[in-house]
Amino acid sequence: MKRSDRLVAMTHYLIEHPSQLVSLPFFSETYHAAKSSISEDLAIINQRFQEEGIGYLESIAGAAGGVKYVPEMAKEKSQQFLDAMCDRLEDSNRLLPGGYLFMSDLLGEPATVRKVGQIFASAFAKLDVEVVVTVATKGIPLAYAVASFLNVPVVIVRRDPKVTEGSTVSINYVSGSSRKIQTMVLPKRSLREGAKVCIIDDFMKAGGTINGMKELLKEFEADVVAIGVLAEAEDEEEERVVDQYTSLVQITNVDVKNKKIEVHKGNLF
Amino acid sequence: MKRSDRLVAMTHYLIEHPSQLVSLPFFSETYHAAKSSISEDLAIINQRFQEEGIGYLESIAGAAGGVKYVPEMAKEKSQQFLDAMCDRLEDSNRLLPGGYLFMSDLLGEPATVRKVGQIFASAFAKLDVEVVVTVATKGIPLAYAVASFLNVPVVIVRRDPKVTEGSTVSINYVSGSSRKIQTMVLPKRSLREGAKVCIIDDFMKAGGTINGMKELLKEFEADVVAIGVLAEAEDEEEERVVDQYTSLVQITNVDVKNKKIEVHKGNLF
Repeated sequence: MKRSDRLVAMTHYLIEHPSQLVSLPFFSETYHAAKSSISEDLAIINQRFQEEGIGYLESIAGAAGGVKYVPEMAKEKSQQFLDAMCDRLEDSNRLLPGGYLFMSDLLGEPATVRKVGQIFASAFAKLDVEVVVTVATKGIPLAYAVASFLNVPVVIVRRDPKVTEGSTVSINYVSGSSRKIQTMVLPKRSLREGAKVCIIDDFMKAGGTINGMKELLKEFEADVVAIGVLAEAEDEEEERVVDQYTSLVQITNVDVKNKKIEVHKGNLF
Repeated sequence: MKRSDRLVAMTHYLIEHPSQLVSLPFFSETYHAAKSSISEDLAIINQRFQEEGIGYLESIAGAAGGVKYVPEMAKEKSQQFLDAMCDRLEDSNRLLPGGYLFMSDLLGEPATVRKVGQIFASAFAKLDVEVVVTVATKGIPLAYAVASFLNVPVVIVRRDPKVTEGSTVSINYVSGSSRKIQTMVLPKRSLREGAKVCIIDDFMKAGGTINGMKELLKEFEADVVAIGVLAEAEDEEEERVVDQYTSLVQITNVDVKNKKIEVHKGNLF
């Protein structure tokens, strides 16, 4: 295969297999080329990825070595994307009762969701996350986007057990906003003990839901190494119960009466 | 920029923007190259994509023209992937009460979900789908995977209205398996009238849920052009109420007593 063909094929392969170690012999055999040629190809790809601001190729030496595409979005690129998102969210028509914000349209765009996933994955790349956990429903697409870049599975916490999941572990928790007692369940066979977990959700006010997830994960002796929320907003009535988290946008000065709202970049920057 | 660099950058761009028309001047300006060079690059990429079995570049002539990456997975590749999935599913430990099958582990793998999405997108590529609709919870990741390849938004039907979605339209329907009356809701501003819709779900027995979605979509005067389910299974007690659909795998001869099950490729092939 010619270099030009290899570059196309290998770029595609690496993008479809982020955070995954690929051995040089694999490329060598698949594309019928000498290891030295493959190394040159990878050097070209690595430089281009870095200049495009989409990450880099990490080389791991030794017999079990190879190359791994680490999809790290450039800071400038992330900021541009989040600035545009803030502009779109800062629209008073989005205000809903209770100080909530209508975001379903943005969360319904696969390309937007994928970029959000890449930003979180870039932030959490060094934490050796083993599984991404979210709660139904709106956090699910974001969780998959993060997980696909980190190359780890997703586990979904539900509010109601379903017959198609087998035996489950459940906890009760107090929801921050409604102050009602709610339930969360996780299938027993969904998570191994001691797993390094990243929690992802779309929205956080006081943080009751995320706290509930943390409690539930304790039952699995999971190690929560990161918490990422797309949007955070202040809760007027209750203090925040989650302290360590990463947010991409921050909703402030919500004035339901005068239909005003401010949206800024979150604590990631 | 050199050809080798352009090939890496353009391959990445096209893969991240499937089913989207990109003008030649855009590439020309972004990568500082003559249109003739860009055309040659695209010819190389097109041939490689086809040989890798991941789709092709469609050229649209004229002033508003350009090139579009149509991500069509080769039949052979899809079949290999589905054969492997059938093998994994044909495990009696997956059997759950009521003849359901535990699939959460597979549905939790982003790479698997992405491939399923690509197979459905390949099957529905010519139908001009404008929006993918699914119902919470398990169909969500599949719906996003399909939608990302078709470059259209996702709309999620819920079983309970949420405050963060504004005003909603709801219907009641009879669930096939439990024969209970259930509710489905969709935010009013989530779907425009007359949209061409593709319904995606993970599992179908009698089809009550999908029928419910069709009923709800009638309220929006939507045009359901495709229905895709990952797995279909027979319902012993009830006849199927949905007739036109595409399934990727078929679960047959479920014998809960003797813990036996058969899984074959679905009606796509």
